[in-house]
Amino acid sequence: MSRTVYLDNAAATRPYGEVVEAMAPYFTEHFGNPMSFHKFGSAPREAMEEARNSVANLIQAKAEEIFFTASGTEANNFAVKGVAAALEKKGKHIVTSAIEHYGVHHSCKMLERLGFETTYVPVDEDGLVDSDAVGKAIRDDTILVSVMLANHEVGTIQPISRIADILRKKKITFHSDARMAVGHIPIDVGALGVDLLTISGQHLYGPKGSGALYIRKGVRIQPLIHGGVQEQGRRAGTENVPAIVGFGRAAALAAANVADERQRVSGLRDRLEQGLRAKIDELKINGHREKRLPGFLNVCVNYVEGEAMIMMMIAKGIMAASGSACSSKALKASHVLTAMGVDHAMAQGSILFSLGRETTAEDVDYVVEEFPPIVERLRMMSPIYNAKNAG
Amino acid sequence: MSRTVYLDNAAATRPYGEVVEAMAPYFTEHFGNPMSFHKFGSAPREAMEEARNSVANLIQAKAEEIFFTASGTEANNFAVKGVAAALEKKGKHIVTSAIEHYGVHHSCKMLERLGFETTYVPVDEDGLVDSDAVGKAIRDDTILVSVMLANHEVGTIQPISRIADILRKKKITFHSDARMAVGHIPIDVGALGVDLLTISGQHLYGPKGSGALYIRKGVRIQPLIHGGVQEQGRRAGTENVPAIVGFGRAAALAAANVADERQRVSGLRDRLEQGLRAKIDELKINGHREKRLPGFLNVCVNYVEGEAMIMMMIAKGIMAASGSACSSKALKASHVLTAMGVDHAMAQGSILFSLGRETTAEDVDYVVEEFPPIVERLRMMSPIYNAKNAG
Repeated sequence: MSRTVYLDNAAATRPYGEVVEAMAPYFTEHFGNPMSFHKFGSAPREAMEEARNSVANLIQAKAEEIFFTASGTEANNFAVKGVAAALEKKGKHIVTSAIEHYGVHHSCKMLERLGFETTYVPVDEDGLVDSDAVGKAIRDDTILVSVMLANHEVGTIQPISRIADILRKKKITFHSDARMAVGHIPIDVGALGVDLLTISGQHLYGPKGSGALYIRKGVRIQPLIHGGVQEQGRRAGTENVPAIVGFGRAAALAAANVADERQRVSGLRDRLEQGLRAKIDELKINGHREKRLPGFLNVCVNYVEGEAMIMMMIAKGIMAASGSACSSKALKASHVLTAMGVDHAMAQGSILFSLGRETTAEDVDYVVEEFPPIVERLRMMSPIYNAKNAG
Repeated sequence: MSRTVYLDNAAATRPYGEVVEAMAPYFTEHFGNPMSFHKFGSAPREAMEEARNSVANLIQAKAEEIFFTASGTEANNFAVKGVAAALEKKGKHIVTSAIEHYGVHHSCKMLERLGFETTYVPVDEDGLVDSDAVGKAIRDDTILVSVMLANHEVGTIQPISRIADILRKKKITFHSDARMAVGHIPIDVGALGVDLLTISGQHLYGPKGSGALYIRKGVRIQPLIHGGVQEQGRRAGTENVPAIVGFGRAAALAAANVADERQRVSGLRDRLEQGLRAKIDELKINGHREKRLPGFLNVCVNYVEGEAMIMMMIAKGIMAASGSACSSKALKASHVLTAMGVDHAMAQGSILFSLGRETTAEDVDYVVEEFPPIVERLRMMSPIYNAKNAG
């Protein structure tokens, strides 16, 4: 029996059919530049504003607070570097967590070369940031705190509103990378208390090349991409109308489906987790057991390497990830797992199963059937595992 | 007779049907992340590399010298800010022309706030940059020269290879924004002698959201968008595979068609120019008469305002532009025309007719028939024009 089970939704999601259909007219019929006065500009412009409403609605923001970008990574760069550029006269200290996406970390590293300092707040073994530790990291010259809403490898959901409470008193700009969370759990930027929020279209079954930064009215920020007056003068370049339209449609569908899908997908995830735990010993589940994104199951399988498991899973038609997509070619141990205290050897045996909209109970049962024998076979080749069991 | 004539190809082009068809499978069937090891990553990855070959081939570069971006504007920001960041220890002086796109100018302005200095080399009345003037602007601390290949408002083609000859001896990095030119005239980066070249997919009948920066091997540059290891670690964020595939297809079609289309389109442009000159007095043609992009006809009509003409043309189904798309909402006099010495009042009467792949002789003849009466009607309402003609 040949079967394909795609459990790599953290790396890429297949857009809804309706999303692709909604985009189609904006490649050909409505190809105009939204900045044009004539009729070829009107349809793209109106469609773009409708999309902005849909994205705003998904996170309970106002449309004029949504600034479209080409990716979540661009939005993260925009947030971190843009606030740094706007507020550098006020101070040059940034606080972030140890488990952020590289878009945030490497933006901080770049700023460090310009004289900024960064404090990387550690996380506990569940990948949780302690809000009090964030508060303690604040200095007089702190201008920005950036803590992700949910981690991209283990799915742990951070106490964003508690951090916001602390920062509000100190009037420090607060950014959260919510790319993995938006569309998968309900989000309300007002309740969260953030000033800036990163969203990615491709992580909520929208098209690649779509992202947005929510910027609360009044927040000071400089552009990352300078040029024309698009996006209220904050993000230059001809708007990618088809991608924006698709993003908007995906956001509208997400708003309609988020409650049901959250329950359905987390149910499947739990079924997968229980199934694997029952069959594999020394299986470590990474990430917080309750405060976790519905589709995320990150496991460490002791005594075997992630890459070997991935290869053998591929032979069985199971597509999952070892480490994050952005570092998958690097074969380094995940900085997220390392920060969570997982030891280097164990971290190299990590697998992320990320479930999504198309995942079925049959998919899960197939993995529960096929994955444990893979582990068993690999462990039989592991001298450490054999030595331990012989002992 | 109702007719629609689209002469605003400088603002947006309609992608080839083949381009849109080529993109389609990469939204749904091949939606995977190109960084994924498993089979969902392979097809996107291979398609992306094929596109890279096509784009490289169009400008006679090597595939590994093409770095995909989301727009020409992003590529311009990447080039200017990226070289500045890489070489700031060597010097903090940049030379550019007075008629660059805002993506270059506003990047320079941003760098000026960080302590850089910019020399804006003037242009003559045809919009030509004097290569000797560029040479004279060079200082010991000059690290970058950025001069566009062809202007986005008047189409004037600059003496890039002559500038490159001067810079080569001084070992100064040379960037050229070629977004309006690539696909419309033959380009060979080796013959041009540039180190960096900006390309835009949407200006050569590819999709919005696609662009690239050519980076000659060995050129020192820092990323604009930090994060994952995509694009050889120089441009982070999940690759917009469908847009890249469409861009590649458009580049392949451009390479096949550029010679014929250049002749056909410039023939139509000349027919339009001659037709209008024969019927409208005090019509000024902006841009160099020979060294000009094939599809560009920028005119100033004395005594009338550009916006009024645009509105009346729209009523006749003729879509053209007044000023560049990126500043069309601003209603300011074009910085390009001002730099060319066109006086402010005359510059406000400028119209850019930009012809393209779909333009026909019938389109041109229709404009030659309908546009002069519009000018006549508006001039009858102009007190200055009437006073002059009565005198």
